[in-house]
Amino acid sequence: MTTPISHPFYFDCDTGIDDALALAYLLASLQADVRGIGTVSGNVSAAVGARNTLDLLQLAGHAHIPVALGAHDPQTGTFRGGAPHVHGANGIGEVSLEAAGAGLAQETAAEMLVRLAHEHPGTLRVLAIGPLTNIAEALRLEPELPRLVEEITIMGGAALAPGNITAVAEANIANDPEAATDVLAADWNITLVPLDVTMSNVLEESHRQELLAAGHPVPQALGEMLGYYFRFYEGIFGRACSAMHDPLAAALAVGGVKAAVAPVVQVDVDTTDGPGRGQTVCDLRGLYMDYPEQPGARCRVVLSLEGDFAPHLVATLLSFSESTTAAVAVGAAVA
Amino acid sequence: MTTPISHPFYFDCDTGIDDALALAYLLASLQADVRGIGTVSGNVSAAVGARNTLDLLQLAGHAHIPVALGAHDPQTGTFRGGAPHVHGANGIGEVSLEAAGAGLAQETAAEMLVRLAHEHPGTLRVLAIGPLTNIAEALRLEPELPRLVEEITIMGGAALAPGNITAVAEANIANDPEAATDVLAADWNITLVPLDVTMSNVLEESHRQELLAAGHPVPQALGEMLGYYFRFYEGIFGRACSAMHDPLAAALAVGGVKAAVAPVVQVDVDTTDGPGRGQTVCDLRGLYMDYPEQPGARCRVVLSLEGDFAPHLVATLLSFSESTTAAVAVGAAVA
Repeated sequence: MTTPISHPFYFDCDTGIDDALALAYLLASLQADVRGIGTVSGNVSAAVGARNTLDLLQLAGHAHIPVALGAHDPQTGTFRGGAPHVHGANGIGEVSLEAAGAGLAQETAAEMLVRLAHEHPGTLRVLAIGPLTNIAEALRLEPELPRLVEEITIMGGAALAPGNITAVAEANIANDPEAATDVLAADWNITLVPLDVTMSNVLEESHRQELLAAGHPVPQALGEMLGYYFRFYEGIFGRACSAMHDPLAAALAVGGVKAAVAPVVQVDVDTTDGPGRGQTVCDLRGLYMDYPEQPGARCRVVLSLEGDFAPHLVATLLSFSESTTAAVAVGAAVA
Repeated sequence: MTTPISHPFYFDCDTGIDDALALAYLLASLQADVRGIGTVSGNVSAAVGARNTLDLLQLAGHAHIPVALGAHDPQTGTFRGGAPHVHGANGIGEVSLEAAGAGLAQETAAEMLVRLAHEHPGTLRVLAIGPLTNIAEALRLEPELPRLVEEITIMGGAALAPGNITAVAEANIANDPEAATDVLAADWNITLVPLDVTMSNVLEESHRQELLAAGHPVPQALGEMLGYYFRFYEGIFGRACSAMHDPLAAALAVGGVKAAVAPVVQVDVDTTDGPGRGQTVCDLRGLYMDYPEQPGARCRVVLSLEGDFAPHLVATLLSFSESTTAAVAVGAAVA
């Protein structure tokens, strides 16, 4: 019997409903060994995101995973209050979770990432699904970080798809374009998971019902949160469903799903004050010839997937119902 | 017997191989009555474009149509020499045409547009297939221009498709973003024909052979020019063929082809010095719900066509072989 290779992960998030799904996916995946989690302001403040993360970890029976508070404000400017209309005032769709017993780690998110990179040189994977403020700070703390990290997967940007916070900008990148510039300019293996692929792989009401019926508090809580999320996305898609930004990035990072079209191209971030601020300017002019190689480019931009993601996501989240690690959490309160 | 309505047209161009096709299309179309042509620096200088236009008009038996010289330089900066690698040093693929007898009009392109708008109030159509320098100048000369013009069709920009001069910018708009801003901000009916639709409707070698075999100097000269153009596009598409930017805009302007998907949306032009300079920032966030109405928006952005354009284009250009107006040109030298 072979066991899947389990990769050590640093997970950077702004929890957030789809962040909660991504976290649960990582915890359920046999290919991910989450060694530390940092939070950043985005969907909610870094502090609220950390609280949500701690509560979810306890619910999932993973309270031992350390959570570090990251940057409250972007590199320039100040945090503007997040997206309560998308994620609810508490960030998790007004679902109440039992308050975790564990407290925050005694290090910042950036310090945690640097420490883990040194503890797992060449094998640490980074999954960043919020604004890139903490990752940019870690690059300043440890310029050798790109050499120490095996790869970084980022949920963010819009390549050929429309933006979601402006006509051309996606929220994670637009919330800190200066940090994104630093992260995308660093010399490491980057996979960018933009709206092109996260808006075209959708979770439907039938999937949500499967989670609600699971008989385990983690998928059940996620199903409840998704009720809130679906109401926002009804204004985008015209029916009760949602994009799956963060869990899709998680699945690509662990290898649970594969990219179909994912050219390695030059990506610049617009840091002007013009109408393109926050846009990921991806050089996809090779579109008409199946993307010839671009010398010097190193950012893999995922434009489409092999297969259908939603069933894989739901099946992975339902595995909580069978897991022993999560058994301690059964019966935890979901108010 | 009903005659098609023939619309008076002002045509602004930077001739250019695909401009030559657009001009020939307009001359062959029963729905267009070209009352004046202005040139602007783009593919070639305004002066070279005017010379090519005069020579083409003579070849087509339309030497009576006045041609006015327009702006040599964009609103800011200076003309940078055009695109000889795409269109040839002479702008028409190194094809030599007999030099026209007619000279230039005694007015600028912008003055011609303003004059024609006053002569055909409410019915003049404008087709602009080069940088928008002359049109912006005309708006400054006559602020009432948008009220006098029935509609303006512009070949330019990239909405969801990649750019062609940078990752996100198309050449016509990027050659004078400040002028484009003024033109797109004016209160008139605008149809934008971006790379999204011009790169996905392609002319093939078989179409070129039909033109070469036509037995009339106009389609024959166009077929020869397209040999040069195809060699450039072989580096884009991987085979001998070409985009049809300008003739497609002409066909949409006269109603020879119809748009399928063409939402009316807000369009801003990036005039920063960032990586998005020259981009048409089109608000296509309504994509997922079939583009709900955007209050205040008035720019129709053509994203796809009804039917196949290339056969219509070729058939229209081949009508020269039958026309009486062009008969005088038969035998004109095409070296």
